[in-house]
Parts: sequence; structure tokens; C-alpha cells
Amino acid sequence: MGDRIEKFKKLLEEASKPVKAAKGRHAKYRGKIQILSKVPISTFEDFAVWYTPGVGEVAKAIHKNKDSVYEYTNRWNSVAIVSDGTRNLGLGDLGAEAELPVLEGKALLFKFLGGVDAFPLCIAAKGQEEIIRFVEWIKPSFGGINLEDIAQPKCFHVLDELRKNLDIPVWHDDQQGTATVTLAGLINALNLVGKKAREITVSLIGAGAANITIARFLAAYGVKIGNMIIVDRTGILHAGREELRGGYKEKWEMCLKSNREGRTGGIAEAMKGSDVCIAASAPGPGIIKRSDVASMASDAIIFALANPIPEIWPWEAKKAGARIVATGRSDFPNQINNSLGFPGIFRGALDVRAKAITDEMCIAAAKELARVAEEKGIHEKYIIPSMEEVELFPREAAAVAAKAMEQGIAGIKLGKKELLDNAAKIIQNARAQIELLTKAL
Amino acid sequence: MGDRIEKFKKLLEEASKPVKAAKGRHAKYRGKIQILSKVPISTFEDFAVWYTPGVGEVAKAIHKNKDSVYEYTNRWNSVAIVSDGTRNLGLGDLGAEAELPVLEGKALLFKFLGGVDAFPLCIAAKGQEEIIRFVEWIKPSFGGINLEDIAQPKCFHVLDELRKNLDIPVWHDDQQGTATVTLAGLINALNLVGKKAREITVSLIGAGAANITIARFLAAYGVKIGNMIIVDRTGILHAGREELRGGYKEKWEMCLKSNREGRTGGIAEAMKGSDVCIAASAPGPGIIKRSDVASMASDAIIFALANPIPEIWPWEAKKAGARIVATGRSDFPNQINNSLGFPGIFRGALDVRAKAITDEMCIAAAKELARVAEEKGIHEKYIIPSMEEVELFPREAAAVAAKAMEQGIAGIKLGKKELLDNAAKIIQNARAQIELLTKAL
Repeated sequence: MGDRIEKFKKLLEEASKPVKAAKGRHAKYRGKIQILSKVPISTFEDFAVWYTPGVGEVAKAIHKNKDSVYEYTNRWNSVAIVSDGTRNLGLGDLGAEAELPVLEGKALLFKFLGGVDAFPLCIAAKGQEEIIRFVEWIKPSFGGINLEDIAQPKCFHVLDELRKNLDIPVWHDDQQGTATVTLAGLINALNLVGKKAREITVSLIGAGAANITIARFLAAYGVKIGNMIIVDRTGILHAGREELRGGYKEKWEMCLKSNREGRTGGIAEAMKGSDVCIAASAPGPGIIKRSDVASMASDAIIFALANPIPEIWPWEAKKAGARIVATGRSDFPNQINNSLGFPGIFRGALDVRAKAITDEMCIAAAKELARVAEEKGIHEKYIIPSMEEVELFPREAAAVAAKAMEQGIAGIKLGKKELLDNAAKIIQNARAQIELLTKAL
Repeated sequence: MGDRIEKFKKLLEEASKPVKAAKGRHAKYRGKIQILSKVPISTFEDFAVWYTPGVGEVAKAIHKNKDSVYEYTNRWNSVAIVSDGTRNLGLGDLGAEAELPVLEGKALLFKFLGGVDAFPLCIAAKGQEEIIRFVEWIKPSFGGINLEDIAQPKCFHVLDELRKNLDIPVWHDDQQGTATVTLAGLINALNLVGKKAREITVSLIGAGAANITIARFLAAYGVKIGNMIIVDRTGILHAGREELRGGYKEKWEMCLKSNREGRTGGIAEAMKGSDVCIAASAPGPGIIKRSDVASMASDAIIFALANPIPEIWPWEAKKAGARIVATGRSDFPNQINNSLGFPGIFRGALDVRAKAITDEMCIAAAKELARVAEEKGIHEKYIIPSMEEVELFPREAAAVAAKAMEQGIAGIKLGKKELLDNAAKIIQNARAQIELLTKAL
């Protein structure tokens, strides 16, 4: 036990290093992203092509055929990361300015992992209708929209409306992103314990942006809705939770359809006997108790996703009988990391000019993610690849693009090999340019 | 005469080359700008500093002190180029998508000449109140706003409101940009012919975004408003132009204050006897006639700024008696080129975190631009530097920054040498990075 505490201290100390270094390193560089040229500029005459008078011909061509904007500009590869800063990393509403360093970091990941040019737009508009209008206004400049760190419940309405109305991909990373990567991990975890999706019972702790979408994805993957038991701050969702009627419709539907046996109570009652527990609630430890884990079915699978501290420490969950534990942290095995999702998924959606990112495309991404790990040999401490296994991104992109084509929402059609090669080339090129700049810094 | 026609043909042929090449070259690169890293990325652990968990500390610090966003993010160096596409390069309303290649080109110039990270936002919102609201919403992400290619008269209202309400620089290049560079050229032209601003008469052909601002700047520089004669499509502005009352207020004021002698008529009547003619009206040739030029005072100065073809060809103007001719074209001497303005002016404004770009800052920029040429030795064919004389940009930046400090609207105070060195270093660094990428392409 003394050893474990010692190990734990070291772990926390290690984890705190980047946190301690962050302010100083940010102040040194004063910004993490910049605008640079994609075209050669060798002489001043080049500007007569890239700007006036040459660009006038390009403008006229796009005016004649609006779609050619994807041939002549960077729109085909550009994504707006839009946030009102009301749910900054789960730290709450810190204001639009405080969101900027977060989105700059996300833009770095977009480029490094997915070769996508993403630009941060932190906006001084918090009303849901305002955010929707804002995204509609900026649409002509972007190939896709990544909503980020927008508080619930408005994030649901904003995403649903924009997915319905826009003909470019719209994505809320805290909903689809987390759900995609969670499903990827779960696919392999179930595989390891030899349980089938249609037979398992799942407790979901937390009913926020992540878990509501996770429940929807699990259902699409084959888990019976009636076998899911979802707990929010008040308790288990069931048809008697009248106060939720008229709120977010998907949550209310879960009240009606989940929890077939009509359980009531809290986390303990929800987890009892379940094969899988997915917690995306509040930072722990201690949200999930050892006794809760001990009450689960054999070969229990626990995803404790709260950041920075999971709902239960992995070693505690293991000690209480869990067979497989995943968290959101990079310093434990099985990190459920959103960075495994958005760069590859947008890469794929952009490469075939998909009109949307459907749930089916997300699930195709999750399956491909799971496959990458499975091919290498999964085990209790390796159910999902890490973002360092960069070969996953082109594969994920190709899987997403293929699904978009299959669903008839792709503007461009390409063969599987072409998709893979194309995505790999774009991502490799992005990384090569960043390496070039890193060396020169 | 045969020789001249031959030379003219060659000139037009030369000028048409970038125009002919533009579509092909744009299609080859599919975008002119991209997002790249400003920070080193050597290992995946770096992301723990640049993104979660490290970035959380930075977000909290900005939440505590909003101004520190300028220390921790790229906001201090970033500008939004905002357009609704309603006046695309003077080609008219071609739609938001067709504006994108133009703004991408402008972003290239911003970075290459001024070291500024500018991002194109072509928006699907054309109402003046919508554009104002849009800019107010994006403010937290940017250090400055460059409005571009917005039709008049709404562009006047949009700029005036935003300059009044926002505490970051807001600029409309078609107003202040053109006016600044025009004034720079005029300062040296007057110097050459030995005339004083307070004594000259000026005819202004066209009463659009450019010329209304030029008239205001000329007045601030010392030209008597009563000695200006402004012509719009209907004719000379005068107090009897009742139909203009209630329109854009600055234009109506010009009706009341300019043209002291109460002239009426058109271009011919306006130009008669004037020392200077500044035309920013419609593509020529033939808008200004030789006889109009011949009717001007001795040592006449003509700025024929319409693009792509000036209101009168320079050789015609010269033959009719003009001593100095400037145009908007790079293939004639004395190019009045907006690219001489915005990169250096924004560089200066950003470097001292100016709350605005005042007219006085623009005039300081114009004077410094004029000085750069004067120091080298001005003559009839060299009244203004070209953008290849890149030393002008740090000098312009330092002049603008110094004026902002003098006016008490600078958030940071620096010495003249520091300003110059700082701007030079940032611009040099931008160019070095672009060269690095160009070589690798």
C-alpha cells in the first residue's frame, strides 16, 4: 500500500509538469498558430497572380460556378472551431477570451494529426439562436464547423439545428467526438471479455452532452436501449421523471426508452449488475465507489472519463473487481482521447466533400479505430490506440469517407485506396511543414 | 505613334500574363493560406502543454485578467478580413464565395509585408446592422478588423459605427487604405511641383468610398475644403444637390463645404483650372479626356486610380500637359497601391495595442511613406515607393505606433527604435518562414 501511494504521488507529479510549464511556455511564444503561405512566393510578381489583377479571374469563375470555390481556395480543407466559451474544458463559463488558447491548441491538433486547417472563432454571443446565426453567416468561408465548449442544454439545440440546415459538416466535439472514441474502446473491451452488444446492460453515469450521445451511438451499435440505465444529478432516468418532459427531447426520450426494468435510485442502484459502466460526470475520485464496482457483473468494464481526475482511480476500480478500466488521462492505459476522433473524421469528411457527418460515419470511425488496436493485439491495458499511432488517422479518414459515399452524401467519389493515400499524403505534408518550422524556431 | 501603339500592345500583353495564369495556378494549389504552428512540436508530450491539461492554466489566467489574452495567444497579431462580397474588386456583388480567393490573397500580403496573421471571413450577411453585429461577435478572437469589398453606402455606416463602438482597430481598406497611399503620393507630387497644400485646388472624380475619405484626409493635411471640387455620377457636388441630404452624412457635408465657388457641371467643369485631379471612379480609358487635362493649371498632377484601366492612360495625360501621373497599376510609374498601407499600418497599430486607427495615424503613415521615397530622391516617375522597397513597412509601422502613443490610445508604450526593430524583426521572421515553405514546396 505504501508502494502504491508512492507510485501515485510520482504519477501526479509527472502529470503536473505540463500544467506548471504551460503559462511560461505560452507567454514565450504568444500564440500557437499562425497564417502562412500554401503557395510559393518567389518574386513580387507572384502577387499579381495570387492577388490583383490575377485573382479577379478566379473570383469571376467562382461567381459563375459557386462549387469551384473548393477548387480555387482553401475552403475544401478549412474548419471553423466555434465556441462561446461557456464550458471551457469543463471549467465553466470563463468568457470568450479565455477560450482562445484552448481553441488554438485544438487547431494545432487538427493540423498535426489530420492535416486540417482549423481556425479558432471565440465569439461574444451566447444565445443559442445567435450562435446558430453566426455559423450560418460564416459558412461560405469554411468546409466544416467544429463546435466546442458550448454549455448544455443549448449545445444540443445548436448542433441539431445546424446539422439540419447546413450542407457542410457540423460537429460538436463534446457530443459526437467523445461518443465516437468511447464506442471504439468499448468495441474492443467487449471483444476481450467475450460479451455481445445486444446482450449487455450498461450503466451511464452523467446525462450531459457526452453520455446522451454515447447512449445514442450504443443503441446504433446494437446495445438495447432498455438495457441502458442512465443517471443524472437527480438520479436514474425513468418515465416518471416528469420534470424532464419538455426539456432536451433526446434526454426525455431516454427517460421513456431506457431502463426497461424501471429502476430508481442513484449511481449505486444504476451500476448494480451492469456489464459496462460509462461515467462522464464530474471529476473524482469518489464519484464511483468500490462497492459500486463490486456490485457489477463479472468481467466488468468501466470507463471513468471525467477530467482531470476520473470518477474512480483505475487501481481502485481494478481492486474492486473491474477487468478493464479506461479513463480520459494520458498517464493511464486506455485513454479515451477526443484527439483520436476529430482530426481523422474531418479529414475523411472534407476529402469527399461530405454534406454532413452522420452518426453512421462516426460509428464507422469508431469501428476503424477499434480495428487499428485489434490488429496489433488487444489486451486489458490496450483496447484503443493512442494518438501517437498516427497511422490511425488516414485509416479513420478513409472509413468515414467511404461511409459518406455509401450514404450518398459525398460530393466526390474516390476508391478506398485513393482515399487512404490522399489522406496520408495530406497529413504527412502537414507534419513535414510543422517539423520544418519547429527546426527553424 | 506606331511605336507607341506597339509599346502599348506589349504592355497589355505583359499585364495579361498573370491574369491568364491565375486560374491554373490557383487550381494547382487549392488555397493560398494555411494554418501552421507558431510553437515547436517535437514530441507528443508537447500537446500536454499546448492543449489539455496545460492549457487549462492559461485559460484560468485569462479569465482572471482578460488583457493577458494578448500575452498567451496570437490575438495580439491577428486580424479578421471581413467581407460580404458585395463589391468584389470593383467587379460588383459576386457573392461571399467569390470573395474568398481575394481575401486569401490579401492575407498573404498581410503576412509577407507586415508579419500580420490575417484570416478571411467571407460572410453570408449583407445587411449593415448584421455586418456590425458579426464584427462585434468575433472581436474576442482578433486584435484588429479589416473590412474589405463592402458596397457603399453601407460601408460608411458600418465603419463609422464600429470605429465608434469597438476598442480594437477597425479599418476599411477601400476608405482609409486608398486615402492613405494617395495622400503619400500627393505629398511628394506637390513637393516636386513646388505647390503648397493650403493653396491648391483639387478636383475629385468619383464620390465613393475612396474619394470621400481622400477629401477628408486632404483637409486634415491642409487642403482647403472650399478648394475641392467633387464630382459624382450626377455631377459636381454643391449645396443645391438636395437629393443627397439625408444620405451618407459625410458626402452631404462635402456638398455644403466643398466647391466654395459653387461650380456646377460635370468632370470637365470640375477639372478646369485645378492643380490636382484625383480620379477614383470607373475603369477607363476615356473617363477623363485630354481636353480636361489641358484645362488644368500648369504643372498639373493627375491620379487616375480606376482598376484595371485608369480613367485616362498616362501617356495621354502627359501629352495633354500633365506633369505627374499616378495610377493603380504596377506596370506604370507611381503606383498608388493599397499594399503600401494596410500591412505596415496594422503592424504599427498591433505593436502598441492601439485601440483604434485614427485618421491622424493614417496621415502619419502617409508622411512616412512619402519620406521613404523622398530620401531616395523623388522625380516625376518616382513619387512613392513600391512594395518591393520592403524597408518601408517597419518605418510606416513605427510612425503609426508613435502617433497612437502620442494620441494616448496605445496600450503599450515603446521607444522609436524599439518600435522599428520590433516591427522589422516580426516582418523578417514572417518572410523567412514563407521562404522556408516556398523552398520545400
